[in-house]
Order: sequence, then structure tokens, then C-alpha cells
Amino acid sequence: MSRFFSSKFQALTPYTPGEQPKDTQYVKLNTNESPFPPSERVAKSAAAAAAGLQLYNDPTCSALSKKLAETLGVEADEVLLTNGSDEILNFAFMAFCDKDHPAAFADITYGFYKVFAALNGVPYTEIPLDDEYSIRVEDYLSLGKTVFIANPNAPTGKALALSEIEKIVASNPDNVVVIDEAYVDFGAESAVKLIRKYDNLLVTQTFSKSRSLAGGRLGFGVGSRALIRDLNTIKYSTNPYNVNSMTQAAGLAALQDEAQTKANCAVIRENRAYTSNALTALGFSVLESKANFVFAKSGQISGLSLYQQLKARGVLVRHFETPRLKDYNRITIGTKAQMDILLQNVREILEEQS
Amino acid sequence: MSRFFSSKFQALTPYTPGEQPKDTQYVKLNTNESPFPPSERVAKSAAAAAAGLQLYNDPTCSALSKKLAETLGVEADEVLLTNGSDEILNFAFMAFCDKDHPAAFADITYGFYKVFAALNGVPYTEIPLDDEYSIRVEDYLSLGKTVFIANPNAPTGKALALSEIEKIVASNPDNVVVIDEAYVDFGAESAVKLIRKYDNLLVTQTFSKSRSLAGGRLGFGVGSRALIRDLNTIKYSTNPYNVNSMTQAAGLAALQDEAQTKANCAVIRENRAYTSNALTALGFSVLESKANFVFAKSGQISGLSLYQQLKARGVLVRHFETPRLKDYNRITIGTKAQMDILLQNVREILEEQS
Repeated sequence: MSRFFSSKFQALTPYTPGEQPKDTQYVKLNTNESPFPPSERVAKSAAAAAAGLQLYNDPTCSALSKKLAETLGVEADEVLLTNGSDEILNFAFMAFCDKDHPAAFADITYGFYKVFAALNGVPYTEIPLDDEYSIRVEDYLSLGKTVFIANPNAPTGKALALSEIEKIVASNPDNVVVIDEAYVDFGAESAVKLIRKYDNLLVTQTFSKSRSLAGGRLGFGVGSRALIRDLNTIKYSTNPYNVNSMTQAAGLAALQDEAQTKANCAVIRENRAYTSNALTALGFSVLESKANFVFAKSGQISGLSLYQQLKARGVLVRHFETPRLKDYNRITIGTKAQMDILLQNVREILEEQS
Repeated sequence: MSRFFSSKFQALTPYTPGEQPKDTQYVKLNTNESPFPPSERVAKSAAAAAAGLQLYNDPTCSALSKKLAETLGVEADEVLLTNGSDEILNFAFMAFCDKDHPAAFADITYGFYKVFAALNGVPYTEIPLDDEYSIRVEDYLSLGKTVFIANPNAPTGKALALSEIEKIVASNPDNVVVIDEAYVDFGAESAVKLIRKYDNLLVTQTFSKSRSLAGGRLGFGVGSRALIRDLNTIKYSTNPYNVNSMTQAAGLAALQDEAQTKANCAVIRENRAYTSNALTALGFSVLESKANFVFAKSGQISGLSLYQQLKARGVLVRHFETPRLKDYNRITIGTKAQMDILLQNVREILEEQS
């Protein structure tokens, strides 16, 4: 750290992104990317946008906002597009949390929430998942805090029913409840349909996973006009041109091909069932996932050892070496062929083990 | 504003981007964009990147950082790429300003500095330009504040000599001095060559203007390893994947075509001289600009009226209706043909006036 770094941030521990190794060609099942390339329209639209980059991008993302709103069944001023969903989450921490509105989220969830809280000087409470790694709805009722819930949750993959989400939103009318639906398209129920019923509900989603745009950085929030206005105040005070022209074009193209998105999600759900069943047959405990990954532990081998041995064999999964997570690994669901390579390697590792 | 918006931000006045009208085909000389499309390599590289967007972008921007460092004559860990230069400027306000390190900048300069200060709760001092709209170097010596200087300055276009910048940096050894060189490629001297001599110097630049990538959002900071490390701590706690794959590819392609950048900048300098001379001949006072715009006032017509009449005739320039700026308009330097349209319209407006 330099001698100039503000004391506010000297204790800040940044988020650690998943490994992105450059040396070997891995079967990459560690960062919940889609195994499918984006719609062919995406590259065409992005190239057309790239040819005109001398002009500023539209800070209001008007064409994209309109199409997105149409897709979601809301109005354009009920959505805000951002540079990935990390940005909308950070905007929400900025806009709706402070010393008087501390944050609350699960002890096991997206690791960035506590970084955003620290970054913004927001006090926070981590609420333990139960022994089955589920969110206990009753822990979130009448909390009097700004609530962040990943639904489905990560890295567990477990989802709450919409009725449970609604209970939490309804019981905290004076605090914003943020439902982070990064993985919702793989089988959970979206809370978007509740945004007109509850003015304290903000739903966030991303184009990274189901729409195969992880490298394009496009996320968004959906909520009441007043919430979106506040988030726009933050945006226009931070980075008004936050979503570049190519990404706006890519996002629009992806939305014009929702059939492909839906078909890809169906394949992922099939491959998830296939992988969960196969791992269970191999003696793993696999949490019930509604996301594009599964969280699984073997009775035979430690999480770390399995991760390391898979990596040595060219298969990358995500391991978290923290007390409640270290027995498990998070495995992204890829193509059937990728999952077969994973399973074959797991089988061989377990055989060597016994 | 919603009833949930943090009291911290309730008085925040966001930055107002320049008009981006959609209705008419304007001769657009209002947001300092390049009149030249980006290098042809840019669209090709961006399209290739777009086809692989299912994978996350490289959070370290390694290939681009390496090439940029090479171009600047520094090392890769002395640069940090960001989502436009607004992002690196905001990171600098976050990292190097706080209640104990208030900010200082000119009263007439990039309008976003005071928004960033307010956003981050940083006290700031605005230091008046002199009567010729120049920065008085002596006002910035031994200030004991984190200094932000746009060089060339906006909207004046005036630049300090490198020796003057060095005096300011040297006399504030215990505070970071940020030199915002968004427009440096059009004729001012860059302070990048001083970064190893002064550990308190951060230089920021952008690909928006000279490299025709305004819509691609790519900016960067150059400074000592320790400063860049601090800024990375902020980046990895805010948005680790801040520069998407397409923009990384576009930036790299642009750097592979520096000859085109240099040629474009030479044309802009020629057209700037041509425009300044023509406006002077029409009775305007034109500040001496080292940027891709000129700041000019007529003795015959108010700044607002000229702006409005030009707009009615399909020529868009930037007008600021504040006391010290309202007599002037900021006119982006475009192609010779665009400048001739501007000048012809100005002539006609002045004739109608008299």
C-alpha cells in the first residue's frame, strides 16, 4: 500500500475472482460460465457498434432498456443496466445502506456482499444458513436491515420459493430487500413480478450466465421507479457512460434471441440432473441446485484434495477453503461431454483413493 | 427520490453529460468526440472477442496492460485500465482523498471532479483560474491537498508546460497530484515521464478522444507501483471485471495502430489552427487550445444565443450557462468539412445580427 492510501480502505480485503489460468487448456468448471457461445447476432451487432466507437455510447441505454423491459414485462424506467451485476449490487449498497441502514445477508453467499459493505463503510450482519445450507426465512422477518439474498444462493445452488421471498420483502417494508437473481434462469422463480406490489424490492440479474455474456459485462436492476431513480443518481455521479456501445448492442442482440437462451438453460438443467445423479451414485452429497452449478462433497476424499487432483488432471472446479465449505466443491454445469470428463476423472480419483 | 435513499446522497447533484440528440442529424461538435472512426482492426478484434463472450474477461487486462505500458515506456504494473477515465478518476478520489486529505481543483475544469468529491464525502476547494482562464501555478504550491489538474484543461483547452506541472507535483510531496490528460495527445506535454521521479504523481488518460474509442469506454492511470496497487485494491473491491473483453480487444487493436492515432491528431491540430484563425477573423476571442476543441466568445452575440442559433441550424456546440463561462462556447474540432459548416453558419448568424 502507498503512504497516500486513505485510512478508510487500509483494512479492505478485495474480492478474489475465480482462477482464470492461461497455461493449460482446462475443462473449465470453476466460474459458472455458460459452455455455449452467445447468439450469432451478438458478434455481428458488436462489430457494427465497434465501427462507430468514436461517438459516445448512449448513457441511458435507451434501446436496450426498452427491449429488456419488454422481455421482463415492466417499463423502461423500472430497469437500470450496469457494467455487470456487481455494479448494480455496489450501487444498491451505496444507495440503500449506511450506518442507519446496516446490511444483512447469509454467512454463506456471494462473497462480494461483504466486500461491498466494507468498501462503503456499511455495518453488516451475516446470518448463518441452517445445517442443510438453506436460508431460514424466519431469520429475515422484520429485520430492520437492508437485506441481500442471492436466489438461487451461491455456492450452494439452493433456492427459496417466491412465496418465501415475498414473506421477507413484505415483513421489511421500511428497508430495501435486494434479491440477487444471477442464476434465476436455471430453475428458480423470479421476484420481478412483485416489483409493483412492493416499493422496497430490488431485483438484480445478469446477462453473464444464461445469455452467455460473462465477458461482455451486463447486469441490471429491476424495481420501482423511485428506487431506479436513486440508483440513477448514483450512476450519473459515478460513471454515466458505464455500459459501452458494444455491450449495449450485444445485450440487445441476446434479447432478440431469447429462444436460444431458453434452449441453453434447458440443456443446463438436463446436464445438472445427470451430473447430480452420477455424483450421488458415486457417494457424493449433492445439494439440490436451481443454478448452473452443483455443490457437492464426497464421503471419501476431502474437498481440497479432490479439487487439486482434478486440477492436476486438467479439470478446474471451485474450492473454498473455509470451515463450512471446505468439504465441498462447486462444479459448474457445462456440456454433457464436459460433465462426462469430470465424472470419469472423479471416478478414477476415487478408485486410486480406495 | 425514494424514502430509502441514504441521507449521504440526498444532496448529490449528478454530472450532466453533453446532449446526445437522437432526432436530427446534427454536425456534432459538442462532446469532443473524434470525427474519425477507429482503426479498422478495432471492429475485427471486437467481433472476435464478442464471439467468445461466454467466458469472463481477463480481470487483469494483461495483454492490453502490457501493450499500453510498452507504448508509454513504463511497466505493466505501473498502469491500470478502467471503464473510461471517469472510473480511474473516481478510484483516485476514493483512494487518495478523505476528510484528512481534501481535494483541490480549478473552479473552471472538468465538471465531474466536484461530483466525485461529493459522492465520496470529500471536502474540496475550487481554485479560481486567473483572468486569462489560466491555472496560476503558485496557487497550487505546497497546498497540502490532493490536487486534480486537467492538462489541457477543459473547457478552456489551455495547457500548463511540463515544467509547471513538475513544480506542482514536487511541492506537494505528501499528497497525490492527479494530472488528467484526457486531451494531451492534441498538443500538450505528458507528465507520464515523471512517474518514477515522483511517487505522488498519478497521470490519467483515455482512449476516447485521440484513439476514437469514446463509445468503448477505456481509460487508464499511470503511476508508481504503490499507487497502482492501491487503485487495484479499490478496483477489486468495486468491479474486478470492469473492462469487458470487447473493449480490451478494441484498445489493443487501437494501440497496434498508433500511426493512425498520430495522423488523426495531426489533422485535428491543423483544423484547430484553421478554426481558431477563422473565428478570430470573425471577431471572436479564442483561448489558445492544446485540445481537440476551442473555447471562444464573440463580441457581437451572447454565448447562449450563438449556441441556440447554431443548434437551430443543425450545428451542436457545448454551452455552459455559468457566470464565467456563459459568454463562450466550447467547439469540438472535427473534419475540415465540419468546421467549414460551423464557420459558414457562424458568419450567417453574425450577419443577421448586425
